Amino acid sequence: MLKKTISLLISCLLFCSVLTAQQALFGRGYDIISPQVHANHSVTFRLMAPNAKEVKLTGDFIPSKGWIPGSEAMVKDEKGIWSYTTKPLPSDLYGYSFLVDGMKMMDPNNVHQIRDVATVTNIVIVGGGQGDLYSVQAVPHGTVTRTWYDSSANPYVKKRRVTVYTPPGYEESIEKYPVLYLLHGMGGDEEAWINLGRTAQVLDNLIASKKAEPMIVVMTNGNVAQEAAPGESSLGLYKPSMQLEGTMDGQFETSFIEVIRFVESRYRVIPKSNSRAIAGLSMGGFHTLHISRYYPNTFDYMGLFSAATMPDKRNAGSPVYADIEKSLEKQRYNGYKLYWIAIGKDDFLYKSNKEYRRLLDKLSMDYVYLESEGGHTWANWRFYLTEFVPLLFKK
Amino acid sequence: MLKKTISLLISCLLFCSVLTAQQALFGRGYDIISPQVHANHSVTFRLMAPNAKEVKLTGDFIPSKGWIPGSEAMVKDEKGIWSYTTKPLPSDLYGYSFLVDGMKMMDPNNVHQIRDVATVTNIVIVGGGQGDLYSVQAVPHGTVTRTWYDSSANPYVKKRRVTVYTPPGYEESIEKYPVLYLLHGMGGDEEAWINLGRTAQVLDNLIASKKAEPMIVVMTNGNVAQEAAPGESSLGLYKPSMQLEGTMDGQFETSFIEVIRFVESRYRVIPKSNSRAIAGLSMGGFHTLHISRYYPNTFDYMGLFSAATMPDKRNAGSPVYADIEKSLEKQRYNGYKLYWIAIGKDDFLYKSNKEYRRLLDKLSMDYVYLESEGGHTWANWRFYLTEFVPLLFKK
Repeated sequence: MLKKTISLLISCLLFCSVLTAQQALFGRGYDIISPQVHANHSVTFRLMAPNAKEVKLTGDFIPSKGWIPGSEAMVKDEKGIWSYTTKPLPSDLYGYSFLVDGMKMMDPNNVHQIRDVATVTNIVIVGGGQGDLYSVQAVPHGTVTRTWYDSSANPYVKKRRVTVYTPPGYEESIEKYPVLYLLHGMGGDEEAWINLGRTAQVLDNLIASKKAEPMIVVMTNGNVAQEAAPGESSLGLYKPSMQLEGTMDGQFETSFIEVIRFVESRYRVIPKSNSRAIAGLSMGGFHTLHISRYYPNTFDYMGLFSAATMPDKRNAGSPVYADIEKSLEKQRYNGYKLYWIAIGKDDFLYKSNKEYRRLLDKLSMDYVYLESEGGHTWANWRFYLTEFVPLLFKK
Repeated sequence: MLKKTISLLISCLLFCSVLTAQQALFGRGYDIISPQVHANHSVTFRLMAPNAKEVKLTGDFIPSKGWIPGSEAMVKDEKGIWSYTTKPLPSDLYGYSFLVDGMKMMDPNNVHQIRDVATVTNIVIVGGGQGDLYSVQAVPHGTVTRTWYDSSANPYVKKRRVTVYTPPGYEESIEKYPVLYLLHGMGGDEEAWINLGRTAQVLDNLIASKKAEPMIVVMTNGNVAQEAAPGESSLGLYKPSMQLEGTMDGQFETSFIEVIRFVESRYRVIPKSNSRAIAGLSMGGFHTLHISRYYPNTFDYMGLFSAATMPDKRNAGSPVYADIEKSLEKQRYNGYKLYWIAIGKDDFLYKSNKEYRRLLDKLSMDYVYLESEGGHTWANWRFYLTEFVPLLFKK
């Protein structure tokens, strides 16, 4: 019987040679290592492109010139492999792409990619510091769930997709947990924080090192006209866009009660303001600001990451945006544990944040302020998450 | 207050123009639609590449020449946009890539991609038939969870990642559900069936049309030396490989009891053989064959999709592979509801499957056999899933 059957060893060899043949044809350079992170934290990027005239590298670690992303020329060796080695880089997660004769190309030797709105880039992590928080470490891991909740009050769609992180041990425990609601920015969706933001890795690592309390993190879709991320709804595999209806017009804020109801009926949570936090980046910071005012006594922890602050005049008519100062005063009167504001020095929302802090000062509202380097970037938002989460739900 | 703050409208315009600028620089052709599925089921692919000398399209819909994937020349217009329109295609999910002067390039206008081992390709779905089963439809959706289970009997790693689909209504119900254990092939992992296999979409759609019973689907990682998919373990963002230890040597089979124990303690399941199914593709079909023999009276439904059948001689020493014929006879004696075998006419495992069916004939073991067109492809494995799932757990 054994003799008669095709040897599995042969099938394996067959499999592998097919793969290699395909790679040789398509990827050109299956044996190339790229990216390669060196012990001194420099990184070498390589691309086999013998016929290319010019290959450049773009990446988060190359300074942009105004609005134009920076790039560095790569150098070709005799085998047709182009390479570039960075200086030692600060420990972090970086996105990068190649520009081959002006065309953006993914690194064929790196399957690790993230999508930001309509753009996909490769990623690399430089460890030994901040980047370790974004890496999967040998620590207990939480569970990540994509599920759907009822949104019957929503005029656009009746079911909406949400990503939920539950901490290690949640399923075996009978404990109730606090909840962080974590909101994305314009063009984002319920995949943004878990993928771009590395939420599961950050939480796993901070909880394992006892820097953060075990908590549930709920990553919503803040575009009320959208059921789910592009490709995850019945709209099909369409091209993502920044242009969405119903994002900053008060509708997400008014319907947010549906998210809370869903979370508090589905999960074992502590349904008290001292166990609810809300934070978001950019548009999600805007939502955080307004949701936390609009639902008094609901959240004791607020995080505004590079937040947009005030509504557009067109939307100022929404009841959510009425009497902003009064409702902030009420929020102060009700009391809270943390109002946390972070923004980069180069952020285009820096000035509006300064004005917003002036308003909080005028209203004698306490807040903690973090001013970082850089601008309106995921590098900052990931960093803010790692700074904010340890401040939550301390007993 | 409103006057003082930066207008959100302005921020929006700013955001969008940045995005467009980046796209103009990197992606070249933000306004290009690609792929475009036409009413007659033909598909147009487009790429802005004014400086390229030659652009080709490769895809599942272009016949390969032996082991070499086929390609079609694209044609450039006066704006520098290359395009190619297929003939009307059968409704299905297709992978494709561009070859720009010999370099593989992702479609910059399509963020929808799948990874198969170490290769990433764009995808497009042609609806109106089989492809509708792979699309997110306006039907109730199940929940997809990535979680970790104890694997203490495993000599390599002690925690392993698993993907679990629970059907729509699971969380609100008190019912117990049957379970399908769904196993990947060589080089795959716990992300293979959910991404490449479109398991959540297939199950949502078949359950909504009442063609399948509501069931839980458990998608394991069948490489015992691996904690999790590449990038999801503490090994970091490494390059996936087909070369893994402990894949077809009996260790996954002997440790499979840990998966069952985990599932039956974590989820509300019917812990009976008539409510357990196991199926897999290629190496996963091999695992299915041997697990279902090795655990008598555990599974009433078996699905061998393009299965490898017999162990390599080197591994024949594992107790799992001892007395194969005897244990098949025992399996027959114990009784089961369905032994389902599917393979493509062009599959390199066709002959060994024929020999395996001859063995089953000799042992008078009932089975259902589906012979499809094509070879060892995800197009076939998705198709087999849609044929197999409706046969399970019928009351």
